[in-house]
Amino acid sequence: MSDKKDSKPCHHCQSRSASLPADTTTIHYEKFWLYRHCSSVEQSHRQAQKAGQLFSGLLAMNVVFLGSAFISSMIFNRVAITLADVWILLSVLKVLCVFWVIYYLMGTSRKPHAILYRDSHAGPIWVRGSVLLFGSCSILLNVFEIGYSTILVRCKSNVEIMFPVIAILFIGTQIYFLWHHSKDCIQVQHNFTRCGLMVAVATNLLEWLLSVTNDSLHMEMESQLREVEQRFIAPGNETAMCVCPNTTICRVFQEGYILLYPFNTEYSLVCSSMLYVMWKNVGRTISHHHSLEKRPKFKLKGVLFGPVLGTSAVIIGACVFMMYQIQAATLDPSRQVLVIYFTYYIVLLPLMSVCAVVGTLIHALEKKELDTVQNPTRSLDAVLLMGAALGQIGMSYFSIVALIASNRRDLLNRLALAYSVLIIIQNITQNVFVIDGLHRRHVVAADEAKHARRCEQHTVAAELPGEEESTQDSVQEHSQTPPAKEEKEEDSKEVQNCEACRQRRMSVLELGQEIRKVSLSYIHTYSHLTWKRRVLREISFFLVLSNIILWIMPTFGSHPLFENGMERSFYGYSTWFVIVNFGLPLSVFYRMHSIGGLLEVYVTA
Amino acid sequence: MSDKKDSKPCHHCQSRSASLPADTTTIHYEKFWLYRHCSSVEQSHRQAQKAGQLFSGLLAMNVVFLGSAFISSMIFNRVAITLADVWILLSVLKVLCVFWVIYYLMGTSRKPHAILYRDSHAGPIWVRGSVLLFGSCSILLNVFEIGYSTILVRCKSNVEIMFPVIAILFIGTQIYFLWHHSKDCIQVQHNFTRCGLMVAVATNLLEWLLSVTNDSLHMEMESQLREVEQRFIAPGNETAMCVCPNTTICRVFQEGYILLYPFNTEYSLVCSSMLYVMWKNVGRTISHHHSLEKRPKFKLKGVLFGPVLGTSAVIIGACVFMMYQIQAATLDPSRQVLVIYFTYYIVLLPLMSVCAVVGTLIHALEKKELDTVQNPTRSLDAVLLMGAALGQIGMSYFSIVALIASNRRDLLNRLALAYSVLIIIQNITQNVFVIDGLHRRHVVAADEAKHARRCEQHTVAAELPGEEESTQDSVQEHSQTPPAKEEKEEDSKEVQNCEACRQRRMSVLELGQEIRKVSLSYIHTYSHLTWKRRVLREISFFLVLSNIILWIMPTFGSHPLFENGMERSFYGYSTWFVIVNFGLPLSVFYRMHSIGGLLEVYVTA
Repeated sequence: MSDKKDSKPCHHCQSRSASLPADTTTIHYEKFWLYRHCSSVEQSHRQAQKAGQLFSGLLAMNVVFLGSAFISSMIFNRVAITLADVWILLSVLKVLCVFWVIYYLMGTSRKPHAILYRDSHAGPIWVRGSVLLFGSCSILLNVFEIGYSTILVRCKSNVEIMFPVIAILFIGTQIYFLWHHSKDCIQVQHNFTRCGLMVAVATNLLEWLLSVTNDSLHMEMESQLREVEQRFIAPGNETAMCVCPNTTICRVFQEGYILLYPFNTEYSLVCSSMLYVMWKNVGRTISHHHSLEKRPKFKLKGVLFGPVLGTSAVIIGACVFMMYQIQAATLDPSRQVLVIYFTYYIVLLPLMSVCAVVGTLIHALEKKELDTVQNPTRSLDAVLLMGAALGQIGMSYFSIVALIASNRRDLLNRLALAYSVLIIIQNITQNVFVIDGLHRRHVVAADEAKHARRCEQHTVAAELPGEEESTQDSVQEHSQTPPAKEEKEEDSKEVQNCEACRQRRMSVLELGQEIRKVSLSYIHTYSHLTWKRRVLREISFFLVLSNIILWIMPTFGSHPLFENGMERSFYGYSTWFVIVNFGLPLSVFYRMHSIGGLLEVYVTA
Repeated sequence: MSDKKDSKPCHHCQSRSASLPADTTTIHYEKFWLYRHCSSVEQSHRQAQKAGQLFSGLLAMNVVFLGSAFISSMIFNRVAITLADVWILLSVLKVLCVFWVIYYLMGTSRKPHAILYRDSHAGPIWVRGSVLLFGSCSILLNVFEIGYSTILVRCKSNVEIMFPVIAILFIGTQIYFLWHHSKDCIQVQHNFTRCGLMVAVATNLLEWLLSVTNDSLHMEMESQLREVEQRFIAPGNETAMCVCPNTTICRVFQEGYILLYPFNTEYSLVCSSMLYVMWKNVGRTISHHHSLEKRPKFKLKGVLFGPVLGTSAVIIGACVFMMYQIQAATLDPSRQVLVIYFTYYIVLLPLMSVCAVVGTLIHALEKKELDTVQNPTRSLDAVLLMGAALGQIGMSYFSIVALIASNRRDLLNRLALAYSVLIIIQNITQNVFVIDGLHRRHVVAADEAKHARRCEQHTVAAELPGEEESTQDSVQEHSQTPPAKEEKEEDSKEVQNCEACRQRRMSVLELGQEIRKVSLSYIHTYSHLTWKRRVLREISFFLVLSNIILWIMPTFGSHPLFENGMERSFYGYSTWFVIVNFGLPLSVFYRMHSIGGLLEVYVTA
C-alpha cells in the first residue's frame, strides 16, 4: 500500500502554489482585529479562534451569572423577584436563541463553503435520540402546563400561559437544530455563530438551574402533599390558593407534570453539552482521512454471557423497580422494599466493578496501539464522564458521612452504607475502563490506518495542500510545529522543499518494509487474541445493559437516597434536597453517557 | 547567525545513536502497566503520564469529597460531627503531607537526574513572596490560637492545642518546600510524587473550604459581638461558655486572631495553585532553548504618568481606607464613609478600564509576533485569572440584582450599583489586556528568538537528540506529529535521515536571507513604535499600582459590600455571607494574580 502511494511523482509539490488560491477561498480563515500582524495566516487564524472563544465565553459567563443571581434572588427573596421575573428573563433569552437558530438555518449554514467538514464523533445517534426523547417529554410537560393553567385561568395571569408557549417553540427549534446540525464545523461567521451558541448554552444552563431548584420545590410539594393537601397542590407559589377542581383532566395534567418534570432537567443538560461541542467545533478543519474513517458497525455476534447476564439484571431490576414504585404509591415506602432495592444494587454493583477491572486488565494485556491523535470530542467525552460521575460520587460521600456519624446499627443503615461505597467504586472503575477503551483503536482499522497515516503524511499531504493544512490543524490543535509552519509560509521555496520531500519519501520506502514486518507479526498475535476481544465485548455488553437499568430506575422516579430518610434527618430537609437535586440529574446523565461510551468500547473491541 | 549554525557538519546526525543510550538514562521515561505495548517509548511515556494524572486526580477528588462531606456535616449537623472531627481529618492529612514533603526533600529530589529541568515560569518571586507573607501570618495566627487556648485551658481539651502545632509544622514545611522546589520538573518517582502533590492540593483546598465556612462564623461573631458580648467571644463553638479574662494578652490574641484570619484563606488558595502547577510539571521536559531564554529585568526607566497617577491612586486609596477603618472601629460605619469609599472606586475603576482598553488597542496596533508555543504555566495563569475574576463578577451580579430589585432610589444605592457594574467591566477589560499581553513576546528577544528557533529546529535539534525530544515534547504537548515520531522510532535509519537533514539545511540557508530582510524591516518599524511601548508601560505600571491598592483594601478588612447592609437584608444574613465569603478571597487572589500578570506585561512591553 505504501508503495502505491510512493509511486506518485513529485509534481504535486509544484502544483501546490497553483492550487493554493482556490483553496483559501473554500476555507474561510478567521480574522480578528487584535491579531492583524501575525507572520502567517495560520497563526492569525488560530489566534482569532482563541479570541473568539474568549469573547463568546465571556458573554456566556455574564448571562449565566445574571441568571443565577436572578434565580438565587427568587429563592431567597420571593417578594422582590418572583418566578415570573425569572421566566421573563429566560423567555427573552429563548426568543433570542430561536431567532439565532432560524438565522443559522436560513442564512449562515447556506452560505457557500459554510459546512465543509462534519465532526463524525459529535452528536452520535444515541445522544440525538435522547435529545429527541427528552425534548418531546419537555414539550408534553409544557402542554400539560398550558392545559393546567387554562383550567385554573381564573387565578393565573395570561402572561403565565405565554411562557410555556415560548418554551415549546424554543425546545422544538432546538431539537430540529441539534438533530440536523450537531456535527457541523461551521466555516463562516465564526464569531457570530460562537456568540449564538454560547447564548444557547447559557439559556440551557439557566433552564437546568431553575428546574433543579424548582424540582426541589416540586419534590417537597409531592412529599408534603399528603400532609397539607390544600397548600401545595399547584406547582407555582403564587397559585397556592388555586385548588385543582376534582376533574380527571386536571388530575392527569398534574400527575403528568410531576412525572415528566425530570426529563426537562435532563434535556437541558444534554443540550448544553451538545451545543458546547458545536461551539468547540466552530472553525475547526478536519482531515480528509479522519472524516472518511469507517466507524465500525454494531454487531451482536459472538457474545453470549454478557447479554444473558445483562438481560437478567435488567429483568430483575425492572421487577425491583416496579415493586418500589407500587410501594411508593401507597404513600409509605416500607423498610422491606428499601432493603430489596439496596440488596439489588449491592449484588449488581460489585459485579459491574469486577467486570470493569477485568476489562481494564485485558486492555493492558492486549497489544493494541493507542490512538493519541487529538480529538476534542473524545476529550470532552472523558471530561463529561468524569464530571457527571462527580454528582453521584459527591452524593455518596455525603451519604457515607451521614450514615457513619449517625451511628445506627440496623440492617438498612448498613445496606445504605454498602450501597454508597459500592457506587463510588463502580463509578471510578467504570470511568477508567471507558476512558481507556475510548483511546484504544479499532483493531481492524488500526492496521490499515497505521499504513495509511504514515504514508499519507508525506505524500497525500503534498498532493492536497488544503488537506495538509487541515490535517495538521487537527493533529496539532493547541500546539504549533515550527518546521511545518515554515513549509506553509514559504511557498516560493517550493523547489527546495520538493527536494527534501523526495528525500523523505526514499526513507519512507524503506520504512514501509519494516512496517510490513511489524504489522504481519501484529496480525499473527491478533489471531491469538480473539478470546480477549470476546471477553471485552461480553463485558461491555453486560455493562451497557446494567447501565440501562441503573439509568431507568432513578429517571422514572425511585430515589431511595431521599426516601429512606436517614440522610434527610441528618442534614436537614432543605440541605439534603439541594444535594440530591444536584447529584441525581447528574447521575442520570452519567448513566446515559456511560451507555454511549460503553457502546463505543463494544463496537471497537 | 543562521550561517553559523549551518556551518556545523552533519556528523552530529551520525553520533545520535551513540549518544542515545546515555541520554535515556538521564530522562526517566514513565511507564504504566496499562500501556506496555506502545510502539514507541515516547508514546508510552505520554500515556503513562496521562494515566498517572488520572489516578492521582481521582485520589485528590476522593479526599476532597470526603472532606467536603465532613465539613458540610459539621455545618448542618453540629451534634454528630464536630469541628474537632474535621480538625482530626485535616491533621491526619497534614501529617501525611509533611511526611511526603520530607521524603521528597530527602529522597526523591536527591536521586540522580531527579531535577533535570526547572520551569522558569512557575513560582515567580511575587508568588513565592506572597506564600512567605501569608504563610508567616498563618503561623502567627496559629501561635495566637495556641496562646489563646492555653489561657482558656480550663475549658478546652488538650487535643485542641495539638491541632495548631500540627498546622504550624505543616505550614512551615510547605513554605520551605514551595520556596525551593516550586520550579521543579521532577523526573523520578512520577506517580508517587503526583499522589503526594495531589494530597497536598486536597489538604489545602479543604483548609480553604473550612476557613471560608469558619470565616463566615467569625465574621458573624464579630458583628454580633457588640450585641451578644457573652455568647460569641471565642472562635470555636464548644468554647462559647469560655469568656476571655479581661487581660491585655488575651485581647491581643483575640484581636490578632481576627485580623490574621483572612491570610490563612489566601495562603491555602495560593498554595493550592502552586502545588497544582508542580503537579502539571511532573515528568515534563523543557527544551534547552526555552529554559535559557533570558527573562527581561524590571526597569523603571521611561515611565512617568503611570507611576504618578498610580501613586496618587494609592495615596488617596490609603486615606479612604484609613477613614473607613477608623469609622468601622466606632461600631457604626456611617453612610458618609461608604459614600466616600464607593466614590473612590467609581473614579478609579473607569480609569483602569479605559487604560486596559487602550492597552489592548495598542497591542492590536503593534506589529508584534505572538508567542504561540505551548506553555502550561501561562495557560494556567490565564485560567486562574479568569477563574479568580469569577468570584468578584459573581458577587457583583448578585449585588446588582439585589440593588435593582430592592428599588431604593437614594445616593448610596446608586453608588453601590455603579460600583458593581464598574467592577465587572474593569475585571473583564483587565483580563483581556493581561491575557493578550502575556501572549505577546518580548520585543528584543523576539527577533533573536525568531532566528534561533527557525535554525535550531533543523540543526540543534539534530545535534542534541535528547534536547530534540524535549523540545518537541514541550512544543507538541497534548498532540502528536507522526513524522517527528518516525524520526525518533527508526534510529537505524539514521543515514537516510541525515540526507534529508542536509537537504533541509540547504533550504534553511536560503531562508535565512529572507528572514534577515524581514527582521531588518522589523527593527526599522520598531524604532518608530517606541511611543506605543511607552504607553503600554505607563498603562501597565498604573494598573499594577491600582491593583495593589485594590488588593490592600479588602485584604486588610474593609468589606463595604457586606457592611452596607443592603444586599444583606435582601438575601438574608447567611446567604449573603456565603456569597461574600466565596467571592471576597477569590477577589483578593485575583488582584494578587493580576499584579503578577501586569508586571510581566510591563517588563515585556
